[in-house]
Amino acid sequence: MDNVKYLLPETDIPTAWYNIAADVPPAPAVLHPGTMKPIGPADLAPLFPMAVIEQEVSTDRWIPIPEEVRDIYRQWRPTPLYRARRLEQFLGTPAHIYYKNEGVSPAGSHKPNTAIAQAYYNKREGVKRIITETGAGQWGSSLSFAGALFGLEILVYMVKVSYGQKPYRRGLMETWGGRVISSPSDTTACGRAILARDPNCSGSLGIAISEAVEVAAQDPDAKYALGSVLNHVMLHQTVIGQEALKQLELANDYPDIVIGCSGGGSNFAGIAFPFLGKKLRGERDVRIIAVEPASCPSLTKGKYAYDFGDTAHLTPLVKMHTLGSTFVPEGIHAGGLRYHGMAPLVSHVTNLGHVEPRAYHQNPCFEAGVTFARTEGILPAPESTHAIRAAIDEALRCKREGRAQTILFNLSGHGHFDVPAYQDYRAGKLIDHEYSHEEVAMALSGLPSVS
Amino acid sequence: MDNVKYLLPETDIPTAWYNIAADVPPAPAVLHPGTMKPIGPADLAPLFPMAVIEQEVSTDRWIPIPEEVRDIYRQWRPTPLYRARRLEQFLGTPAHIYYKNEGVSPAGSHKPNTAIAQAYYNKREGVKRIITETGAGQWGSSLSFAGALFGLEILVYMVKVSYGQKPYRRGLMETWGGRVISSPSDTTACGRAILARDPNCSGSLGIAISEAVEVAAQDPDAKYALGSVLNHVMLHQTVIGQEALKQLELANDYPDIVIGCSGGGSNFAGIAFPFLGKKLRGERDVRIIAVEPASCPSLTKGKYAYDFGDTAHLTPLVKMHTLGSTFVPEGIHAGGLRYHGMAPLVSHVTNLGHVEPRAYHQNPCFEAGVTFARTEGILPAPESTHAIRAAIDEALRCKREGRAQTILFNLSGHGHFDVPAYQDYRAGKLIDHEYSHEEVAMALSGLPSVS
Repeated sequence: MDNVKYLLPETDIPTAWYNIAADVPPAPAVLHPGTMKPIGPADLAPLFPMAVIEQEVSTDRWIPIPEEVRDIYRQWRPTPLYRARRLEQFLGTPAHIYYKNEGVSPAGSHKPNTAIAQAYYNKREGVKRIITETGAGQWGSSLSFAGALFGLEILVYMVKVSYGQKPYRRGLMETWGGRVISSPSDTTACGRAILARDPNCSGSLGIAISEAVEVAAQDPDAKYALGSVLNHVMLHQTVIGQEALKQLELANDYPDIVIGCSGGGSNFAGIAFPFLGKKLRGERDVRIIAVEPASCPSLTKGKYAYDFGDTAHLTPLVKMHTLGSTFVPEGIHAGGLRYHGMAPLVSHVTNLGHVEPRAYHQNPCFEAGVTFARTEGILPAPESTHAIRAAIDEALRCKREGRAQTILFNLSGHGHFDVPAYQDYRAGKLIDHEYSHEEVAMALSGLPSVS
Repeated sequence: MDNVKYLLPETDIPTAWYNIAADVPPAPAVLHPGTMKPIGPADLAPLFPMAVIEQEVSTDRWIPIPEEVRDIYRQWRPTPLYRARRLEQFLGTPAHIYYKNEGVSPAGSHKPNTAIAQAYYNKREGVKRIITETGAGQWGSSLSFAGALFGLEILVYMVKVSYGQKPYRRGLMETWGGRVISSPSDTTACGRAILARDPNCSGSLGIAISEAVEVAAQDPDAKYALGSVLNHVMLHQTVIGQEALKQLELANDYPDIVIGCSGGGSNFAGIAFPFLGKKLRGERDVRIIAVEPASCPSLTKGKYAYDFGDTAHLTPLVKMHTLGSTFVPEGIHAGGLRYHGMAPLVSHVTNLGHVEPRAYHQNPCFEAGVTFARTEGILPAPESTHAIRAAIDEALRCKREGRAQTILFNLSGHGHFDVPAYQDYRAGKLIDHEYSHEEVAMALSGLPSVS
């Protein structure tokens, strides 16, 4: 018996996004960086289209997906769900392992789920160009793809270390018509200030966000877009988990454990929130595991506190698990997991006890990635190998315990643009740092004080 | 109205391969390089498993696909067929443009269709390792993928120019467990002889084939595998066209024109032969266009003659459109189209007048590739941009003539591992040579004389 693929017809693309805010106590307010008072929609209007702002603050459980967005989703959605029988056999586990393959999108990850939605709302409100930042390049390429389809100019500030490490991602963005600038750059005041202090600064997502926000705020024809962290992004990604629910019905199965890797939190929320929602509403229990890199351990070692989303402190303050907005993580290959904070909604449900966070080093993750490539045939993104590592570890626990549990994880993207990372792994070149609690406490000492 | 995707259920994966040899007059015999007499199955036995040899010489119209092979096909097959409405709108053409996306396979091209089948038959006959060659790396990575699934060792001789140009492809093969050697190498007698004459030789498919055949013939546990050219490879690829036939039925449409790019001929045959078969049996007319690079113009400027498949003349002689077995094409980015000859079956039906060959330079092909990426959202392989160029040109002709013809082309693979080629295109760095008839005549002067 080989692998089994569960496909859905296009009519099963969800017609509404699921908003977990409807099923949890209210999350802490977002604060204005000047007044430290809760912000309102008007404060966000220079940066986001109004439709997106309404989603950001909505507590409606279901928010309809525009037909124009579903029309484009149809190019690659519903994405396949696989029963990984070849991996199960290799591990000799009684567990059932399923994965949702978001790598089949044109940009190769889950990011187009929100890029298309955000581009659509911006276009509808007359925006001409969108400014954003990108780490590994998954988000920047997804927004460049969306920009090509909607006729929007896209400007991407790409973290300098990735700009050098991932030239293929940059080339992909440019082929779709996006403009890419290495960050920190001399095109912004905050970039120039950082370069004046440290001309060799390798950049971070926090710095790149500062640059993109600064440019967007000054251009009346432009808005800013974020590919993770914010509530509306979590919302857009819930198509993943909703489809998985239907596909597991076809398989006549239900997960005991749902796993996602977690950087800003969006692919994790996308797969986990629809299952967590059923748990919160008392319909069905489930364990939820969020996996992060040991070198950027916001959920496992960070503090749940108010912090800025960016380094230059241009963004509002949000309550989240954070390592401090000036924390610059090592240049690990899983560039999409290199963010100092965590999505406020993911932090909120973690703080409420609904999520088990876990951190891994790069080497065991790449080992899992190679095992996955050789059994399932798909080269996973370095970020996704974190979820695979956890899934394998849970499957091996099931083997030891003789339990046939059902494990579902999100394969957030393919690793076609990350081949050198696998070569570095095979060459034994991957070393990463595990931050001690003391080091993290030091990084956190500069957190803003919020009464 | 956005793009339309035509999906088939897994039960519509073909249950038999279509053999065009049943519908054409017999092709010229394959000759033994020593005796110049037709070869028999025993002559091929050192190189191929017997099941493959039987397929190579079969004239049965339908050859059953083993269930074990269909089981693995199910991971990515049936592949989607798209109506490219966004491209049509951009061109302003009344034509209907459809494309079959073979880039969704784990290795990113149509090549696994035959790699899985060949690995299966080798495994069944007790073979331990398979030796092969690869140009751009599409074939070598597909066989490495298949080897990982069947527990077979894979050794790949990779053309030196691609070994340097496409490090990501090499890394992909190695991640799947394949061993990759730059060709010409000092691991074979023919490699050493070539290096002695020209230490800086950049390699060619003809040379790499010689090295792989030499190693395979000397190892009793090994066989050789070829990713294109041979009859059984054309056969295995016909799943593409068979699925497209069913999908176009769903669309209530039928192509006036079927287009494939053509290097060794396998993706072209895969999409075209099932349609050509219907024409040959008098069921439905169709125009068939094969597109090749101007820098390797075997069909448009080569000679239909007996020639060797490799440079060292270890292979049998086949009658095909050839530029001469010592022809070393320029290092264009469409490495998969750099072969001096053409599949004997493709040459045969072309010689019978059923195929319109056409050649393009790199720049117009990449221009078409960028247009496709920005409208359809998919980055095509450099090889596939040749088919896209022809499809766009036919669609623009339809626009000029005011005719709503239906055009189908094969998107043989994605270009994720070819991003630098797009960057070179944007930088204006692509120059390629158009061989004059005189230059080709010179290259052909060394053809073997066959009475």
